[in-house]
Parts: sequence; C-alpha cells; structure tokens
Amino acid sequence: MSILAVGSIAFDSIATPAGRVDNALGGSATYFSLSASYFTDVRVVAVVGEDFGSEQENVLKKRGVDTRGIERAKGKTFRWGGQYMENLNEAKTDFTELNVFESFRPRIPREYKDSQFLFLGNIHPALQAAVRREMNGVRLTGGDTMNFWIQGARNELHETLKLVNILLINDGEAKMLAEERNLPRAAQKVLAMGPQALVIKHGEYGATIFFREGAFGIGHHPFRAPALPIDEVKDPTGAGDSFAGGFMGYIASQGELNREVLKRALFYGGVMGSFAVEKFGTQRLQSLTRGEIEARFQIFRELTHLT
Amino acid sequence: MSILAVGSIAFDSIATPAGRVDNALGGSATYFSLSASYFTDVRVVAVVGEDFGSEQENVLKKRGVDTRGIERAKGKTFRWGGQYMENLNEAKTDFTELNVFESFRPRIPREYKDSQFLFLGNIHPALQAAVRREMNGVRLTGGDTMNFWIQGARNELHETLKLVNILLINDGEAKMLAEERNLPRAAQKVLAMGPQALVIKHGEYGATIFFREGAFGIGHHPFRAPALPIDEVKDPTGAGDSFAGGFMGYIASQGELNREVLKRALFYGGVMGSFAVEKFGTQRLQSLTRGEIEARFQIFRELTHLT
Repeated sequence: MSILAVGSIAFDSIATPAGRVDNALGGSATYFSLSASYFTDVRVVAVVGEDFGSEQENVLKKRGVDTRGIERAKGKTFRWGGQYMENLNEAKTDFTELNVFESFRPRIPREYKDSQFLFLGNIHPALQAAVRREMNGVRLTGGDTMNFWIQGARNELHETLKLVNILLINDGEAKMLAEERNLPRAAQKVLAMGPQALVIKHGEYGATIFFREGAFGIGHHPFRAPALPIDEVKDPTGAGDSFAGGFMGYIASQGELNREVLKRALFYGGVMGSFAVEKFGTQRLQSLTRGEIEARFQIFRELTHLT
Repeated sequence: MSILAVGSIAFDSIATPAGRVDNALGGSATYFSLSASYFTDVRVVAVVGEDFGSEQENVLKKRGVDTRGIERAKGKTFRWGGQYMENLNEAKTDFTELNVFESFRPRIPREYKDSQFLFLGNIHPALQAAVRREMNGVRLTGGDTMNFWIQGARNELHETLKLVNILLINDGEAKMLAEERNLPRAAQKVLAMGPQALVIKHGEYGATIFFREGAFGIGHHPFRAPALPIDEVKDPTGAGDSFAGGFMGYIASQGELNREVLKRALFYGGVMGSFAVEKFGTQRLQSLTRGEIEARFQIFRELTHLT
C-alpha cells in the first residue's frame, strides 16, 4: 500500500568526529522516503529550489519514490549546517537558511489522493493539519514535531494532535509537550491529547510505544524496542526520520493494523535508524537490500529476546 | 547455592517528591541481600554500630539472610541523607556520616568460606580485592564500583577488575572508567581491563550486558533488558543494588553458567530494581513473593518480545 510523506528536502553540511560532508541531500521527507521505500510505495510532497537537479531527484527515483509531488520554486533549497561533538545525540546548528522552505504550502497532487497512509514530517503544525484534512481518506496518519513548535505553536499543535493516529517524538519533546518529567506519565498526557499511540524515541536506548487504552488491541502495556549499540556512529543526521520511515513503511506494507504489527514496526524503525547513522547523509539508505534489513532485524531480536 | 555479599549497611534519610523517611535501613549489602534472598542462600559481611539492633537484623533474618558476618563495632552505623528532585536519576547528598564504616575491614567468617558466589558491593577497591583473594574458591564474582573510586583509587580499581568476573556499573561510570564517550567502545575498553562480562545499567532505559569474546559462550553480541516504565517511583535509593541482587541471586540459583542464564539474570535484575523503587527504603523488598517476581518477569518479557 502507498504512503504519502510530507516534509522537507534540504542540503545539509554536517561535521562529526568521523568527518564532514557539504551540501548532502537531506531533509525529513528525503530520509523518511528512502527508508520507507524498502517496505512500500512512497510518494513525496516537498519543496525545492532551482539548485535541486536531476542528480538529487534520481536518489529518490532510484528507490522507486514517486517524486511528482516535489514542487520547484524560485530560489534556493533549504540549507542546514551543523556539527556533532563527542555526544552524538545533540547537534549544534551552524546555520539555517530556510530559502524556499519558508513559504512552503504543501500541495497534494490529485494522483496522490488515494494514498492509504500518511506521514507528516516536522513542519508547522498548521500545515500538517491542513494536509491531514485534505487527505481525509487515509487509514492511518503518523506525525512528527519538535521543541520549536511545542513552544512556538502549541495551540496549532494541539489541533494537529487530534488528527494524528501515531505521534513519533523523542524523550525531551514528550516531556516538554506534556509538561511532565516522568516519562510514562508524560506519555499518558500526550495520548490524552489525541493520538492512539505514541512512539517515544530514546536515542541510543531504543524506543517505546505507548497505547491508548483499547487502541489497536486490548490492554495498555507499552512495548520497547532496542537500538543497536553502534561503535562507530558516522553521522546521526536523519536517524529519527529514518526510524519513522521504517516504522510507517512496515505498517503500510501489512494488511492488518494491530499491536503485533506496531511492535514489529518499532523494531524496523530501530533497524532503519541504525543503518542511517553508519554513513554520512543518506548514503547508507540508498543502497540497502531487504536481506540486510532482515538480517539486522534478527540481530535486534537476538539483542532482546530470551530463548 | 550460596552467595556472599560484602558491602555497607546504613541508616538512610531520604526525601523524594513522593515523601520522606528517616533512618531507614539501607546500604548496598542490605538491598543486595534482600533482593538476592528470593533466589538463593545469602550471607552478608558488613559493619554496623551500636545503634543497629535486633529490629534491623530481623529484617534480614526474616528473609533467611545469614547475618553472622555482620560485625558490631563501637560507635554509630553509617548514615546517609539525600534527596531526589523531579529527576529521580540523581540524588543530592545532604550528609554522609561514615562512622564505623570508615575503618571497615571485611572479615569473612570461616563458615562463609565455602560460598560459591561472591558479590563485592561498592566499597574501596583494595578491600574488594582483599576479599576476593581470600575467597579464592568462588565460581563467580560480581562487583560494583562508583565515580568516587574511579577518580580516587584508579590503580587499586584496576587490580580489582582483574579479579572480578562480572562488573555492574552505570553509563556514566562506564564512560568515566574507560575515558570514552561512546558506550559500546567504553564497554570494550572496560572488558579489556579484566571482567568477562560487563553489565551497564541505563536507569529507566534498562541495562545491557556486554561479553568478552568467548566468555560464557560463543560470539560477542550484547544483550539488552528493559526497565519497567514506572509512573510512580517513590524512592530510587538502592535500585542498583537490588538489580545486582536479582542478577547475581538468579545466577547463583542456576546450575550452569552460560549466556542464556546471564540474559535471564539481566531480566531478573530489572525486575528486582523495579520493585525496590515502588516503596521507600527496603520496604517493598521485605515482603515480595516468588509469584509476584515471576509475574513481573512475564511483564518484562511482554514489554520486549515479539510473538
């Protein structure tokens, strides 16, 4: 089944202890689409500038991503520069040039309207809500957000959360959104805002999915998937969107929507996040095989499962 | 099989957002022994002062802990006062009165010498090493340490690490000991110092066990167990020692020493840690049943295992 991803396309300049790269193709829609493309058909809505050429577009096309929804605007593509120090969990931003992204208003091509799954990447919550309302036939919507919107657009975000089935955020964002330091309590507060399930990403410690009572099945027990203990993280950029791509992509590839599917999806999210950080930019996500993905899924299983 | 625990017995005064308690029985040997007592025979070596009476001793005796190794010295028992703020992972120490603990030199009663398992609680590494050398017939030694010794007694600690089979420490301690920020790399460096296995506790994110190549089995894949997402942590004091008690106690209860046993032990460690924090002091650890422990083990399994 097909999934529509709405988000950013960017040129990233990244420095980490392992090296640096300049003007590498990035952005939430890019990482998400490449990651999800190993599981299902992906369609993308984003905006780029005149500096986005066929070389960049082919990265997506080679993975079978439908790029008809990429809008070309006058000006330059969104650019971000940042560096990661020894603590790879946090980026220090060197510059942000929004460029054409500043006035991005997602336009959904008619041929995308039958998409059954929707992922709302990290853009203004009012834009997320508008897209979601336009795509009112979707079976399931996943969404991301960040501290910037939690602090700066809380009211709009609350409206969006009523329209999202599964929210994917990290620990700090969950605590800030809920205004609550205890993570399980924060999760309950966020679920009360609308989503039926909440995925909280813990970086190197994996991720937990919390369910609203009765959503996708019986009971309210959360489920936790690990992250791979990786000796050599080359570049953490895009790990969260790659996680979301594996998670949503796997869900979209399944006929049923139940807790077992969501649990396995959490594992696939971790798997794709672990690949993304192995090389700079989207490099690793461009050349995976389904066999490599399944092999790593088994490693994740062995990492956590008793016999 | 029997396990000998060497560590501290203390009177703790603790304040947390959930309340406070004064002069509650605590200390590493206390938490460890109570926790391990649900799995195996436990013997304890520690020092107390004249203020330690039969009321306190009976807490241990009621759980079948052999208290003949508790030395009574002139003076007062070790006292610690501390508080936890909203972030329950870190205690702010209000006072530390070492009292009789200051000149503690562990003396192993003759009738303890046949203990097959040994746990070296968080005391000076030179004392840990002396105990370990005296107990040269043990099958397996587990040990704990802390930042204070890593910074202040590094040489002695390095000697001790050569005598310990399994070291149990937290993320911060592992990184400090290895002088390495990346956790998997830090783990490899610590393993190179001596231990065959290293348990790194991640607080609310669970724990990971890393193996030296070939130790306890084939391969080098780590294994990760979760912590329970707990809404209401009453008092985190002793969680680490309770974890160690469940971990070592379960190992001592098994005939074999292999990776499957150590993996299950990691789960039991998490289980016992999760009970410890539910009430103030050792209260919850005094009145558990094996049935409650097994039920929570199942919850931990469901929290992480795909069907």
